[in-house]
Amino acid sequence: MTNELEWKWERLRQAMADMRADGCLVASNRNLYWLTGRVVGGYFYLSLCGEPHVFLKRPAALDRIACTAIRKPEQLPEALAQAGLPMPRRLLLEDEALSYADCVRLQRVFATAETVGGSQALRRLRMIKTPWEIDQMRQSARRQVEVYRLIPSCYRAGMTDLELQIEIERLMRLHGSFGTFHADGANMEIFMGSVLAGPNAEVPSPFDFALGGAGMHACSPLGANGTRLTSGMAVMVDMSGNYTAYQSDMTRVFAVGRLPEEALRAHRVSCDMAAQMERTARPGVSCAQLYRDALERAGREGLGGCFMGTRLQARFVGHGIGLDVNELPVLTPRSQDVLQEGMTFAFEPKFVIPQVGAVGIENTYLVTGSGVEKLTLLDEAIVPLE
Amino acid sequence: MTNELEWKWERLRQAMADMRADGCLVASNRNLYWLTGRVVGGYFYLSLCGEPHVFLKRPAALDRIACTAIRKPEQLPEALAQAGLPMPRRLLLEDEALSYADCVRLQRVFATAETVGGSQALRRLRMIKTPWEIDQMRQSARRQVEVYRLIPSCYRAGMTDLELQIEIERLMRLHGSFGTFHADGANMEIFMGSVLAGPNAEVPSPFDFALGGAGMHACSPLGANGTRLTSGMAVMVDMSGNYTAYQSDMTRVFAVGRLPEEALRAHRVSCDMAAQMERTARPGVSCAQLYRDALERAGREGLGGCFMGTRLQARFVGHGIGLDVNELPVLTPRSQDVLQEGMTFAFEPKFVIPQVGAVGIENTYLVTGSGVEKLTLLDEAIVPLE
Repeated sequence: MTNELEWKWERLRQAMADMRADGCLVASNRNLYWLTGRVVGGYFYLSLCGEPHVFLKRPAALDRIACTAIRKPEQLPEALAQAGLPMPRRLLLEDEALSYADCVRLQRVFATAETVGGSQALRRLRMIKTPWEIDQMRQSARRQVEVYRLIPSCYRAGMTDLELQIEIERLMRLHGSFGTFHADGANMEIFMGSVLAGPNAEVPSPFDFALGGAGMHACSPLGANGTRLTSGMAVMVDMSGNYTAYQSDMTRVFAVGRLPEEALRAHRVSCDMAAQMERTARPGVSCAQLYRDALERAGREGLGGCFMGTRLQARFVGHGIGLDVNELPVLTPRSQDVLQEGMTFAFEPKFVIPQVGAVGIENTYLVTGSGVEKLTLLDEAIVPLE
Repeated sequence: MTNELEWKWERLRQAMADMRADGCLVASNRNLYWLTGRVVGGYFYLSLCGEPHVFLKRPAALDRIACTAIRKPEQLPEALAQAGLPMPRRLLLEDEALSYADCVRLQRVFATAETVGGSQALRRLRMIKTPWEIDQMRQSARRQVEVYRLIPSCYRAGMTDLELQIEIERLMRLHGSFGTFHADGANMEIFMGSVLAGPNAEVPSPFDFALGGAGMHACSPLGANGTRLTSGMAVMVDMSGNYTAYQSDMTRVFAVGRLPEEALRAHRVSCDMAAQMERTARPGVSCAQLYRDALERAGREGLGGCFMGTRLQARFVGHGIGLDVNELPVLTPRSQDVLQEGMTFAFEPKFVIPQVGAVGIENTYLVTGSGVEKLTLLDEAIVPLE
């Protein structure tokens, strides 16, 4: 783990140098985990020319990173001095992860320093995974596949989308899912994933996920809404792959009875789009181009109106994934990114068929030196529930 | 619901007037729900002298609140003008709920306005519940009691704390828990609650909850850690009461075999502390005094060293509750608050007995005109698991 962390610290130092910053202070759970190997109650500090240091507001056991106990951020300058670290002149702060009040408080603490937003730089560093991180994602993907294989055993005739989801949630937990679904962005609330069936697949949600669903409650308007599963319905399962800190993302479709030909065809188109992407994608390929290829194919198939939704259509067909389900790069028309070796991303061309539900597949991929490798290895055909 | 919302808007206008603000813009899920009755993708805006308005980035159905579609916050000034609302001169923003980047972006959008932090004012408004909110909490409490009654049926000899928790989670979901556990504060991550057993109850966590636990993973170091439940262990269940948007909070203790007398006595002391608080608490009573009473009693019983933890002791014995599990007031020595009619709070005097586990009770109370009313009505004795 130390080599793992040292590699990350060195990359962060390079990013700091590029931004002419000589200090970086990290306080969000995800970046703390990325930089220390665990979530701690406190701050991680990296100096351009010194050892990393953790300032702990609550006790924690950290291997091979020096720690100092503090009670409040106002003690940071003194604690830095005691640790032999210079006060920064230009300090990176997590401007998109910390609250305004917390950032302003830190700006006062480091009043002699200029502060600059560091969230995007950290996001770009996290975009390229280490071999250890990739192994964690493989482990998550394997567990996720095991759970998805068991989904038909959860089904009972007459149950609702939510009742099916609850049994899947239990299987996930018994297979090691730690529950909380990590997504980047303050308002991106989702429980353990999404089960969408029938007309509910068309309902827009307030969240920027690929599809919506009405949910069960006005305070959590997303996903399953109590739809009773009846013959002719597609049931799309897109539950979290959070079996390690590094998630995989996979969607499969289950069918109650026989689906209409329109839905079966759209599902085949989604599989074809994924196969096409797998032939095209390699380092250097533009993420925007991968989106445009998918959109163009959907149009050619006469499925443009139900691609990634109907009433509200998501303007992406894939997304980076790792500690958060929505990392960089995003496969969206506005993306400036090209694929790079070590990126991991989910590709999810989906179609919503009114009254029937959502169809299509999602898999998680690793960008290799010459192409992409699928991590979520499970048959992609629609699975009958009976 | 309209009267409910109008009452909230009027109280917010009063708070704005007190802070000499003529506009308030809200974008966090919890405050959006409080002010509109649902979570939407966009902004709620209240002018001191105009009707409330919602600016939606994503479609949503809102009853009786005027809505305008926008794509990005930069369109807010024009959209305000079209809605016939004046540009604010002094604008409340959620400084503790929005990220620094989002707040700075809004400050640029409202460049002619002075902006002031509004999170604390909103928190203080939400501290006093309406009759409808209290009814929601009663509903949550009833469901939570139903689920807790079924906990012994989840137990199987030889299972771990996590396995027991997973069965409780499933029961919660089948009884209408919407899953996501809402806590105020960016780093306050918890899944559906906490089951603590045996030595794990002593382990500190990075989070500011009453007790800790090692958790299953370094990215989620809280709660159950896979402890196998064996004879002589106390199993403390503190799972979320999120059956409506307004949570209840309740802790009960279960025992495998016979607990040592020390644990049984500490549990009785906790029940006595709650009974004492129930006799003392009424509008006007100081929250700090309620904490001091509990701490003093713990000391008198020779239990000061294990009150609210051992290696790390929480410095509160209760907390407001509603949309978030950790609202105002906090029953902590530093609190300046006194109880007021319409407040709802959880009271949780707990003791950690090394090797045995945690004991004590937690209940949710409503502050009435003359005292407090317990909402979580369930026997408080330690329940045998067999």
